[in-house]
Amino acid sequence: MRYQEMSQRELQREYRKLSAAYREMEQQGLHLDLSRGKPSPEQLELSRKMLDEVNSGSVLDSVDGTDCRNYGGLDGIPEAKALLAGMVGCRPEQVIVGGNSSLTLMFDILSHAMIDGLLGGTPWCQVPDRKFLCPVPGYDRHFAMTEHFGFELVPVPMLPDGPDMNLVERLVREDASIKGIWCVPKYQNPTGVVFSHEVVKRFANLKPAAKDFRIFWDNAYCVHDLYPEDAEPLPDILSLCEQAGSPDLVYEFCSTSKAAFPGAGISGVAASAANLIELRRVWKFATIGPDKLNQLRQARFFRNTAGLKAHMARHADLLRPKFERVEAILKEDLARSGAGSWTEPKGGYFISFNTLPGCAARTVELCKKAGVKFTPAGATWPCGRDPEDRNIRLAPSYASLEEIEPAVRLFTICVRLAALESLASMQVGSADMEGERIA
Amino acid sequence: MRYQEMSQRELQREYRKLSAAYREMEQQGLHLDLSRGKPSPEQLELSRKMLDEVNSGSVLDSVDGTDCRNYGGLDGIPEAKALLAGMVGCRPEQVIVGGNSSLTLMFDILSHAMIDGLLGGTPWCQVPDRKFLCPVPGYDRHFAMTEHFGFELVPVPMLPDGPDMNLVERLVREDASIKGIWCVPKYQNPTGVVFSHEVVKRFANLKPAAKDFRIFWDNAYCVHDLYPEDAEPLPDILSLCEQAGSPDLVYEFCSTSKAAFPGAGISGVAASAANLIELRRVWKFATIGPDKLNQLRQARFFRNTAGLKAHMARHADLLRPKFERVEAILKEDLARSGAGSWTEPKGGYFISFNTLPGCAARTVELCKKAGVKFTPAGATWPCGRDPEDRNIRLAPSYASLEEIEPAVRLFTICVRLAALESLASMQVGSADMEGERIA
Repeated sequence: MRYQEMSQRELQREYRKLSAAYREMEQQGLHLDLSRGKPSPEQLELSRKMLDEVNSGSVLDSVDGTDCRNYGGLDGIPEAKALLAGMVGCRPEQVIVGGNSSLTLMFDILSHAMIDGLLGGTPWCQVPDRKFLCPVPGYDRHFAMTEHFGFELVPVPMLPDGPDMNLVERLVREDASIKGIWCVPKYQNPTGVVFSHEVVKRFANLKPAAKDFRIFWDNAYCVHDLYPEDAEPLPDILSLCEQAGSPDLVYEFCSTSKAAFPGAGISGVAASAANLIELRRVWKFATIGPDKLNQLRQARFFRNTAGLKAHMARHADLLRPKFERVEAILKEDLARSGAGSWTEPKGGYFISFNTLPGCAARTVELCKKAGVKFTPAGATWPCGRDPEDRNIRLAPSYASLEEIEPAVRLFTICVRLAALESLASMQVGSADMEGERIA
Repeated sequence: MRYQEMSQRELQREYRKLSAAYREMEQQGLHLDLSRGKPSPEQLELSRKMLDEVNSGSVLDSVDGTDCRNYGGLDGIPEAKALLAGMVGCRPEQVIVGGNSSLTLMFDILSHAMIDGLLGGTPWCQVPDRKFLCPVPGYDRHFAMTEHFGFELVPVPMLPDGPDMNLVERLVREDASIKGIWCVPKYQNPTGVVFSHEVVKRFANLKPAAKDFRIFWDNAYCVHDLYPEDAEPLPDILSLCEQAGSPDLVYEFCSTSKAAFPGAGISGVAASAANLIELRRVWKFATIGPDKLNQLRQARFFRNTAGLKAHMARHADLLRPKFERVEAILKEDLARSGAGSWTEPKGGYFISFNTLPGCAARTVELCKKAGVKFTPAGATWPCGRDPEDRNIRLAPSYASLEEIEPAVRLFTICVRLAALESLASMQVGSADMEGERIA
């Protein structure tokens, strides 16, 4: 029976039953972490052989004859540009290869926009009421970065096919202080939503009041399908922007972090010729080029887009059972209670879970007390404040299947306990239940 | 005989003789480059075995048990921190390890100072008349970086024991808009000067009007001795700043770029606790940590400071003959003419050459016409403008000994031709010589 339909007595009985289950789990001394989207040790093993691709016996020149050990090559070596272009479906000449982190590329572009402005525009640090659109729930590190740079963060609801485009179109048309929007277009963090073709097209056809408005298109999970055979490629945003007459509207990001090694992959930014020329003009002051030996290592290991996809299928084989197990437990434990709802993504690294309103923080707190760490409630919202206190991001990748079982069982217990506390206090005041409430 | 003492007739005869030599060299179709401080292919070979240090059979954990493949570790792994601390003579906890380029660390710190300000100070982008001190001759990339960030570049003469400290002390005491100074304290680029202990002490005891004044102490050549047995370590600037009561005055930089691979080394910044806390607070938004596998590779290959020094002695064995050859040719060809003067550095990557006033650009132009590229005249000065047009940076590292011979022979011919053109035009107007002048 759904909790919302239970009598006060039934709620209390349910709470007592679940409290006992909670105490029992607490006794187990769990020490588990489902908080961050880290690949598991088994996934890292998939790329171990990459470390042999560049050894003391290797040819250390790239295909264009560059000695990858020495200085130079701001753009990246041709085979690395081709690899990343193949990942996102653009042309190699549209890509600049970065270091081991696409996040750093985003940060560097924002720094540049703050200090210099984009393509002749006013430096953003001189726009005191600067704003950035943040689809919610979304990625905490995106939001934190623009918060750090002094942007007001404007939440935009995620719908099942992408951000609410009616709202996005209206906001950017009306307000020139809105300078950008964060997007994870495929398997969005944390909802797992894949932007529909229609939504991608509407992004490319945005007509922002700010000439220097930019879409930060973080295609972090472009090849991270859980069901590769059913996966559909996303339309190429760069081509669509060109066709719409706004080639400079977007910076697209990708990396091999979750294909190879999270700490030692290569990243890339794809953009229009004008945007890339500007980035080169600035970055030539900052570096004599990223690590080309690592580019060589990655390019030789994956070989080409087909090789990369075959490799990602092996990642999927490790990840899929974990996602399916989490979803099965959620369904088994929660479907009848109505205490929560969740997404069932076909790729990426996260499941987005909604508790009843006002129950997310309490749920995470209860889990933590019993030894299982989840992403802090609110993390998926700008400045860490979820106005409804509902959303929790589940990250099943790092834990083993054996660890997922107790962790998610505990989670569903806590979701229900928090729901019951909330419903009971709504119905009868907190007095009755308070005596039994878990501290 | 010194050119300055020659008669008009003697100058003409010398010019004719050297023109013939120049024409002859022009015929050889040289195609050589002594412009940039790149290690030679032979030097790169010294580190080839490093590529095997991290292979598919390796333990991939750092000494503290961190899996170097996965995310995390903003500070760097302990063994990398220890390696870099050993290089510059500070403590490991004073070091944050960066990516493959110390230049990027400098750029990132300047970006941060521009946008956020340092330790509570006004963001530098809000200081319209911001200035940076530039010891001259100096490193073009340093100067270009601060020029990019909108600083007025204030030249400070390099003396045989370091920058003119009387001037530096006065300038920073009087002008709060002076925010920093570039220093290469050991084997300065391009003079090869090693700052004296007295100069280092005076730096640590600076009393700048600007609370957020910083010394950018680029210790790029700290272990790059040409004569390791005679080399003396530089005093540790961080300790001296602490003792002087100004622990936050300095950022020190180093890297393994010219020890391992220029494009694939690791870099570090060493600074006070307060400065490092601030950098971490900002950089946590920019990255989930630099490439730890490469840190592991470097730390395991060099093992410790002694291992690093032994490796650098092998570099010295390759570099020393080149420097000595250049200096021998300069002496042989130019000592009597008085047409130039040069430094004889005991380490680093450069020789600083001074032509007669007004002759540097012409010298480089003549060399280029005959197929040998030198660093553009003026490059060692802020904004590329050497007010006396005298300084040329010679970079003997990349070329082979066989290539150095004709390249430097050509150089001395061009130095003399430019001197003769200058002297003749001063003495008699340009008419007489003009007919013979090389176009």
